[in-house]
Amino acid sequence: MPDYKKIDSYLHSHLDDSVAELSRFVAQPSVGAQNWGMQECAALTAEMLRKRGFVTEVMPTDGAPVVFGERKGKSGKTLLFYNHYDVQPAEPLELWETPPFEPSLRDGKLYGRGVSDDKGHLTARLFAIDALLNELGDLPCNIKFIVEGEEETSSVHLHDFVRANLARLKADACIWEFGGVDHEETPVQYLGLRGICYVELSVETASIDVHSGLGGSIFPNAAWRLVWALNSLKGPDERIRLPGHYDKVRPPSKRDIELMAALPETSEVYKKQYGVKSFIKGLTEGVDLRVEEVFTPTCTICGLTSGYQGPGSKTVQPARASAKVDFRLVPDQEPADVLQALRQHLDAEGFPDVQVTFLGGEAPARTDPDDPFVKLVCDTAMEVYGKPMKLIPLSGGSGPNSPFVHDLGLPVATAGLGYPDARSHAPNENIRLDLYVKHAQHVARMLVEFGK
Amino acid sequence: MPDYKKIDSYLHSHLDDSVAELSRFVAQPSVGAQNWGMQECAALTAEMLRKRGFVTEVMPTDGAPVVFGERKGKSGKTLLFYNHYDVQPAEPLELWETPPFEPSLRDGKLYGRGVSDDKGHLTARLFAIDALLNELGDLPCNIKFIVEGEEETSSVHLHDFVRANLARLKADACIWEFGGVDHEETPVQYLGLRGICYVELSVETASIDVHSGLGGSIFPNAAWRLVWALNSLKGPDERIRLPGHYDKVRPPSKRDIELMAALPETSEVYKKQYGVKSFIKGLTEGVDLRVEEVFTPTCTICGLTSGYQGPGSKTVQPARASAKVDFRLVPDQEPADVLQALRQHLDAEGFPDVQVTFLGGEAPARTDPDDPFVKLVCDTAMEVYGKPMKLIPLSGGSGPNSPFVHDLGLPVATAGLGYPDARSHAPNENIRLDLYVKHAQHVARMLVEFGK
Repeated sequence: MPDYKKIDSYLHSHLDDSVAELSRFVAQPSVGAQNWGMQECAALTAEMLRKRGFVTEVMPTDGAPVVFGERKGKSGKTLLFYNHYDVQPAEPLELWETPPFEPSLRDGKLYGRGVSDDKGHLTARLFAIDALLNELGDLPCNIKFIVEGEEETSSVHLHDFVRANLARLKADACIWEFGGVDHEETPVQYLGLRGICYVELSVETASIDVHSGLGGSIFPNAAWRLVWALNSLKGPDERIRLPGHYDKVRPPSKRDIELMAALPETSEVYKKQYGVKSFIKGLTEGVDLRVEEVFTPTCTICGLTSGYQGPGSKTVQPARASAKVDFRLVPDQEPADVLQALRQHLDAEGFPDVQVTFLGGEAPARTDPDDPFVKLVCDTAMEVYGKPMKLIPLSGGSGPNSPFVHDLGLPVATAGLGYPDARSHAPNENIRLDLYVKHAQHVARMLVEFGK
Repeated sequence: MPDYKKIDSYLHSHLDDSVAELSRFVAQPSVGAQNWGMQECAALTAEMLRKRGFVTEVMPTDGAPVVFGERKGKSGKTLLFYNHYDVQPAEPLELWETPPFEPSLRDGKLYGRGVSDDKGHLTARLFAIDALLNELGDLPCNIKFIVEGEEETSSVHLHDFVRANLARLKADACIWEFGGVDHEETPVQYLGLRGICYVELSVETASIDVHSGLGGSIFPNAAWRLVWALNSLKGPDERIRLPGHYDKVRPPSKRDIELMAALPETSEVYKKQYGVKSFIKGLTEGVDLRVEEVFTPTCTICGLTSGYQGPGSKTVQPARASAKVDFRLVPDQEPADVLQALRQHLDAEGFPDVQVTFLGGEAPARTDPDDPFVKLVCDTAMEVYGKPMKLIPLSGGSGPNSPFVHDLGLPVATAGLGYPDARSHAPNENIRLDLYVKHAQHVARMLVEFGK
């Protein structure tokens, strides 16, 4: 039984070193969407693991490489950490108070692109390992790291990578790349992620735009074709009209509703934060709003583009129109089913001219709220955060947890250093150093308890 | 009786000078929608008129100024030319083979934004005047020019301008800003223009874009609201669903159908020129296609914009969405009626959140096909083009002819240098120099005959 006081003392006294390491890590750009610095950042990630005695390998994929690292510990049990070294583009640059790739410390916060999502999570976990090695001279359990470079670009190659490396990635449980506290400073644990099927719908009705005085009466109009095709997918009743779309939807269980009911009220927070006047589907507040937020499939238009979009008027009939559409999926929906149903639906509704381009997908996946590993993560958090961790049965967002849950068969728990003002994906992304240390304290405890 | 041979000889031998003048005119941008170069181009227009001895005035409006010019001639009769110095936006710039505001001559064609619509028409007419002055020393009739700067932005202030200047604009007939030959090189004369009501529809559902993992299930989506509102205006049956929209529509007369039947077949030309595979409403060819093209009201989406429109995917729920929509009107529809019906319709269909911004309107107007001035324009064309001019009872396009027809009481005839591949409003707008000279020859003859 290690002395947690000594571990915590190590973490407090060595914080500057860890923040310096994180700062070097953030200063190495790794913007997947811009293919900027990916190889260099993968090499740096492997070097950071090797410094802790991990055997590492930078493994190529058809996209950015995956960094794999492994170190044996005292017990025969293995914990797998999933992290990623890629970051979102930093644009719009003019909104950053300090340059995104020059990490800056002020008021107890470290600012920079990727400092929270996800580089800070990786270094905080390595920091916990440093503290354990210092105190115990060894790891309490086997640890594996899989650090990918395509999380911010839909993890296009991760599923295949996992399937091709099942033996190497074999573990008993998995800690996810993110986590943190809510606006009441309560640590929360997400037990699953919705899936996603992201497509672009596009129509071309002519080779060039046509003067609307000519085209309007007799030529097909790409923008109209797109509008009608979209309208056929979902009307104001919000019901998605793809054939069989709801067939595999598992409604939330009694336990899920119970967990959702225990979460804090969000309606006023949302209205204030996003300037939304009212919710759809007649929702107003309470558990109904929270359950609907995550337990229903969605079909969201993320973008529309066609014809003239400048100021004033231009009398043109557009030859081309396109829409970005994401479908969020709940268990047990599958992105491949959505793609197939979408094509069938468009053909059946008279829109064979509407092209579907698949831009990325993930299946939804969940971990049982009563899995012992979930309890271990909660119990070890209690001592660090001073209050019970809240369990959220499903997140509205998506991520590549399906191969970990369904292919590797792991319970996946989230724990991290995030907080509501971390501004991930936005300018002035930041972490709070107090939460950075807390996450390291939590990880050290998880590893010890897990090894028992 | 002037010697037309000498006039034609002047026009052929001075073509380079006129093209140089047109090139300078085109090189002065005057994009109304972007408020770019309007004052400068108005001043240049006035200068070009003054060079021919016109008394000019640049008259302010609440928008771009109107250039007015007047010069007396031998007879007491007055011909009014209506032209415009503004041009359409040049975007998308990447599709131009040479820069839109650097006129470029190749293969007997001059390329540039506005070279056909409408700057070439103005300079060709001035070129005819130069030839007449050179040959006769005087003009055969009084000539007035009204050159506005808001034609491409729906001539918002022209109607009021005409009403406020009825005495100054008094004339006996009017030559319109455009005209030209069809794909069989036959000169055509349009006897009327459809009206238009151009609006922007816009929706705002939140103060900022929301992560689609959160917003998709519970927040209103501006792009969806817009799609549904648009869909309520017109479905794939192409029937416009505004209340009473077809009540004032006058069907084409027997004489109209007779004139339309005499026009050449267009279906294959359209398919080839615009890359359109088939027409809407089950139309295939013949007089039915031609009548439908111009004698029906339209509702055209000219542009759509919302959310993320870049490469790849971004999982965002847009806070704002907007569409540019034009309604083409046939006699006796009125833009004010459309605006009122549109608001009523949106409210009734559950879209009070969809804002309507009026961006411009014109009533439809027509000239009697049997007016003597129409005959004069036809007869003088015969000698230049070598074949009879074709009369088209109504154009599919729109323009501010209503105040000229209804307020000034003028017969309005079209004649010009356009041809089917002029690409007005599109990239690589161009004129053919042979047609440029022919239009000047035609104008010179019209002026002489009109003065008799």
